[in-house]
Amino acid sequence: MLVPPPTRLPASSGAMRQGLRVAIHAPTRAFSASVARSKQRLVILGSGWGGYEVLRGVDKKRWDVTMISPNNYFNFTPLLASCAVGTLEFRCATEPVRRFSPKVTAYQAWCDKIDLQRKTLQCMPATPPISFEAQSVPQANATTTESPGVGSGFSVRYDKLVIAVGAYSQTFNIPGVKENAHFLKDVKDARAIRTRILECFEQANQPTISDVDRRKLLNFCIVGAGPTGVEFGAELHDLIHTEMQAHYPTLARLAKISLYDVAPQILGMFDQSLVKYAEKSFSREGINIFTSHHVERVEPGRLFVKEQGEVPFGLLVWSTGLAPNPLIESITELKKDPKTNSVITDEHLNVITKGGDIDASVWAIGDAAKIESAPLPATAQVANQKAKYLTKKLNKLVKDQDSPKPFEFHNQGSLAYIGNWKAIYDRSSDEGGVMTKESGRLAWLLWRSAYFTMTLSVRNKILVPTYW
Amino acid sequence: MLVPPPTRLPASSGAMRQGLRVAIHAPTRAFSASVARSKQRLVILGSGWGGYEVLRGVDKKRWDVTMISPNNYFNFTPLLASCAVGTLEFRCATEPVRRFSPKVTAYQAWCDKIDLQRKTLQCMPATPPISFEAQSVPQANATTTESPGVGSGFSVRYDKLVIAVGAYSQTFNIPGVKENAHFLKDVKDARAIRTRILECFEQANQPTISDVDRRKLLNFCIVGAGPTGVEFGAELHDLIHTEMQAHYPTLARLAKISLYDVAPQILGMFDQSLVKYAEKSFSREGINIFTSHHVERVEPGRLFVKEQGEVPFGLLVWSTGLAPNPLIESITELKKDPKTNSVITDEHLNVITKGGDIDASVWAIGDAAKIESAPLPATAQVANQKAKYLTKKLNKLVKDQDSPKPFEFHNQGSLAYIGNWKAIYDRSSDEGGVMTKESGRLAWLLWRSAYFTMTLSVRNKILVPTYW
Repeated sequence: MLVPPPTRLPASSGAMRQGLRVAIHAPTRAFSASVARSKQRLVILGSGWGGYEVLRGVDKKRWDVTMISPNNYFNFTPLLASCAVGTLEFRCATEPVRRFSPKVTAYQAWCDKIDLQRKTLQCMPATPPISFEAQSVPQANATTTESPGVGSGFSVRYDKLVIAVGAYSQTFNIPGVKENAHFLKDVKDARAIRTRILECFEQANQPTISDVDRRKLLNFCIVGAGPTGVEFGAELHDLIHTEMQAHYPTLARLAKISLYDVAPQILGMFDQSLVKYAEKSFSREGINIFTSHHVERVEPGRLFVKEQGEVPFGLLVWSTGLAPNPLIESITELKKDPKTNSVITDEHLNVITKGGDIDASVWAIGDAAKIESAPLPATAQVANQKAKYLTKKLNKLVKDQDSPKPFEFHNQGSLAYIGNWKAIYDRSSDEGGVMTKESGRLAWLLWRSAYFTMTLSVRNKILVPTYW
Repeated sequence: MLVPPPTRLPASSGAMRQGLRVAIHAPTRAFSASVARSKQRLVILGSGWGGYEVLRGVDKKRWDVTMISPNNYFNFTPLLASCAVGTLEFRCATEPVRRFSPKVTAYQAWCDKIDLQRKTLQCMPATPPISFEAQSVPQANATTTESPGVGSGFSVRYDKLVIAVGAYSQTFNIPGVKENAHFLKDVKDARAIRTRILECFEQANQPTISDVDRRKLLNFCIVGAGPTGVEFGAELHDLIHTEMQAHYPTLARLAKISLYDVAPQILGMFDQSLVKYAEKSFSREGINIFTSHHVERVEPGRLFVKEQGEVPFGLLVWSTGLAPNPLIESITELKKDPKTNSVITDEHLNVITKGGDIDASVWAIGDAAKIESAPLPATAQVANQKAKYLTKKLNKLVKDQDSPKPFEFHNQGSLAYIGNWKAIYDRSSDEGGVMTKESGRLAWLLWRSAYFTMTLSVRNKILVPTYW
């Protein structure tokens, strides 16, 4: 479907600017972001492992690309644990979405609603409202649904849409988690965690604190023993035994790391022998593992664990579970997974209406989506592979070429750093055949180099090793 | 004066820990931080250009050194402007005080009061109060003046004291400055400024904003046209014309930088010809200079300038003037400068009582102090040279050697970056003799290398050029 040419408003309207590539179609306040008539408009929702990869690889000469995401950068999540303890500088773990400007249009905004019939998105700026008291005057000939200056929304039309909005952290409705725990999904989280770790040591260092309180402050708790929680625990262990040991020798000895999970073992998706290796390692390193433990509620500075009672902490990191994204929850016309509430797609990643029809204009990838016939874990690797598949499909589509092959996931294995320059790498094949397991320093090298070759800009490819 | 040996409290008291090097002397809650009887205790207040240099250079084998500062790191202030626009990562511009641990003791605390007779300091932790609801119980045999958990203070005794607490930013009591302007003295300031700059562009990029508001958001105002303000303006100019130009080509063209000062010219301490060169440069770069302009008040998003009326802005950086430190204001027994309220010292940097006596145990350096016979500008260079002089003196003192020479300042010149890879360097000599002026790219090289050879750790010496 070709985009209608932009309509120019009278000169008195301030919002029409040449070169800003925004047009207002009276009477609704819809913005289409295309000047050239021949390109179809592709809108990508989300700038994570799925959305950013599509943004990166899609043919920007042939597609008119718009990115809508509340973040204007991509979080390179495997490096977040390193950022959270300070081994890495935060900016090494992010890539700005605008590195592709001006070839793509990008808005730092939330998409609140998708109108699949009209192929229109309702969006809300994710930047704070501006503080000028003299507010902008509504445009002549345009109808707005909200008053300007109180977070006006805007709409965006699409020809093709990629839903890659991800998922939120799951608190399982446990009281006090949102208020008292740190998540670890974004560099802002990592920065807050690092600040808090250093603060715990400085507070514990004051002469006015009792030893009882010192130990409470230096009890670092992690809930969720998947790769995120395990890697953060490992990085934190390294930090305490190197930098904190040097700066606060007595305090470092009092520090404790405790890792909780409701599951009977840590790293549920890894091979048994590797899990045992990790557990033995943690035990030697003094990291306490409390599997089959249930957190009942959280208050400032203390957990209440069913099997233990009250557990005081200086820092609590919550790295377990995924909760549905509000946008996904608001979608009523598409098929969804009854358990996780993610959007169901066919094996070409297209969404399916409740009536059973495939919407050929809309795809869904990442944690927000699930292939009906082949459910896969919600990991960065899966999102990334789906994105690469989709990118190839989109680039063929725009050249009127066919791409009949369904999506196929090739498990590259799972990596987890477990501290002391050791990692575990599970390359077990689901299809049978050769099974590779690595542990120890060889896996550590593999872990570091795997991250290195992933989607990082040249700048970060230089900076990251310098930090390491 | 030798330090009395530490007194051990009964085991029921939690606060006495072997290895923490803290002792409680009943009945007052005083902490002395020395275990070895032979060392004299040197306490340094402040971790800026004065305090950090003394900490670095003083003989830690012979002195028992304690640092007390609300920051646990040193801000390498010449790099703050680069951090504020993002050219440099924030951590490259800081050095942790604890890199000298455990050879020195450091508390992240404010010193509220100095008792010169008893040679005792009253201090307050600068870390947030801990959040445990079960508060620590007061120690047996110790008298506390405040209840624990509500910011208990502590006292520290000294044999010799260095006052290097610096000065605050001067707002001249102009209403609204504290609430609506950004200062640029610390990396936290730099981070806040960078976040705000990017936010201005993202807000201006939303389709819901009028062009009028776009221009307001992209008006960046700086009050104070000394080296700090000028360098920040220059760095901001570079950022807009490189990264912002690439990411927001239309918006970058709308951006404006305005530099205000009450003085008739910018860079008051520089040679006239260099000032003219800088002014011409700024004019070509589109940076507006408004000298002899007076800010009357500040509201969210707008300045009120006597000569201009209302000036809307997206970001306001306030980089002018020094205000006395509250600790210095609280000192009543020492001679102080009637105009700046800084502590007066003799030419050996010792403080002087109101009665005219020299206190041989206390020195004062940096922005908080002034030599009676030879007033010098409040700059990092002066603080740094005074610190080096004092360090030599202290290291001789502890070996019972004499150091009769008074302090002498040797002006190494003033540097200021003015954008577009150009800088000005004024090496005018006050004693007459050869006058060196440099401008342009040669000065830029000098500027970069001068910062490079200054007090930076090896890590930053590698990282900083990588960023540049």
